[in-house]
Amino acid sequence: MLEYEQMSAEAKLKELGYALPQLPAPGGNYLPAKVVGNMVFLAVITGVVGSEKTIDEGYAAARYCALTQLAVLKQTLGSLDRVKQIVTVNGYVNTVSGFGDSPKVINGASDLLVEVFGESGRHVRAALGVTALPRNAMVELQMMVEI
Amino acid sequence: MLEYEQMSAEAKLKELGYALPQLPAPGGNYLPAKVVGNMVFLAVITGVVGSEKTIDEGYAAARYCALTQLAVLKQTLGSLDRVKQIVTVNGYVNTVSGFGDSPKVINGASDLLVEVFGESGRHVRAALGVTALPRNAMVELQMMVEI
Amino acid sequence: MLEYEQMSAEAKLKELGYALPQLPAPGGNYLPAKVVGNMVFLAVITGVVGSEKTIDEGYAAARYCALTQLAVLKQTLGSLDRVKQIVTVNGYVNTVSGFGDSPKVINGASDLLVEVFGESGRHVRAALGVTALPRNAMVELQMMVEI
Repeated sequence: MLEYEQMSAEAKLKELGYALPQLPAPGGNYLPAKVVGNMVFLAVITGVVGSEKTIDEGYAAARYCALTQLAVLKQTLGSLDRVKQIVTVNGYVNTVSGFGDSPKVINGASDLLVEVFGESGRHVRAALGVTALPRNAMVELQMMVEI
Repeated sequence: MLEYEQMSAEAKLKELGYALPQLPAPGGNYLPAKVVGNMVFLAVITGVVGSEKTIDEGYAAARYCALTQLAVLKQTLGSLDRVKQIVTVNGYVNTVSGFGDSPKVINGASDLLVEVFGESGRHVRAALGVTALPRNAMVELQMMVEI
Repeated sequence: MLEYEQMSAEAKLKELGYALPQLPAPGGNYLPAKVVGNMVFLAVITGVVGSEKTIDEGYAAARYCALTQLAVLKQTLGSLDRVKQIVTVNGYVNTVSGFGDSPKVINGASDLLVEVFGESGRHVRAALGVTALPRNAMVELQMMVEI
């Protein structure tokens, strides 16, 4: 893990070859991110739920959702190197009752955050199944980040 | 939007003719609001879910729920003019699987907050469908507010 | 309630005869707790959901989940006496649509927190029904604690 600590998040992202998604224009009376003192609060959705999605597709959606969060963070902060640590991640999976594998879906986000930020990317997490997300998204992530 | 910035939230509320609801007596081992430093944390429920509710009824319930939040805030702070910004709103809609319009419901809360607080009322938001809320409420809002 | 205020949380826990559960080894790229300044963020799951669970069983699961949170807090802080107040508790109950008694389940956690911390254990709370929790747990608690 040492290399992670020594390399900046921006450099790590480049090394891994990950491109940050373009952000959609904000819709409605809300914002993708807000800063209070040394904390940033974010919420992002991604993917389209389907009746026959696999866990792998969910994992990929959560990963893409985390990449989108990083794009929002970069837009908000100028550089991802201002991130001190990822504090919490709430991952919501659009699913029917009894789906016990929400962690395997949200791992897509957690794994990406640790890839990019190393140990300081490890976070407190809740992986929750919900009946509905905006625009029938498959995954929503809320994050609290210390800068 | 400039008028919003220049007018106090209390004055705006009066101008709009909105009355804050009476708060119910607190029940159970929890509180409607708590303050830590310059942050206020709140959670409020409203409405009664039904099998045949419309989105308009949901919007109205979310709006009323936000008004109730303002009543809690005022009780906690003395005046709404102590609010610096609305940081986050988690809106939970009591709904069955596959209901994709939770944002249209939670807009009732977001729109009211921006009406009253202007740009500083714009917040990071999650609009989530859940299987159950206390007392079969239709909408629950959690807020984080900077003072 | 005065005795609560005067007695330390550690002493109260001993007086009540409550043993803190052993913590499982952490799994995956996340952590049970993280500290930012004077705030601690936690998330813990417990219990196994069943089709025929009673509210009493849910209450007991939520209570045990809160005890597990205290074990995480103690591991994180060294002593529960460093807790200034419990700020927020989000309680998620793994349930089907239309279950209106999630508060009666989450009361198991709230009651324990007030038993141990007295008035400073009273918190802002959301009791939410969700379609799914990790490992089919019955209850998940997220907490924000001021130290």
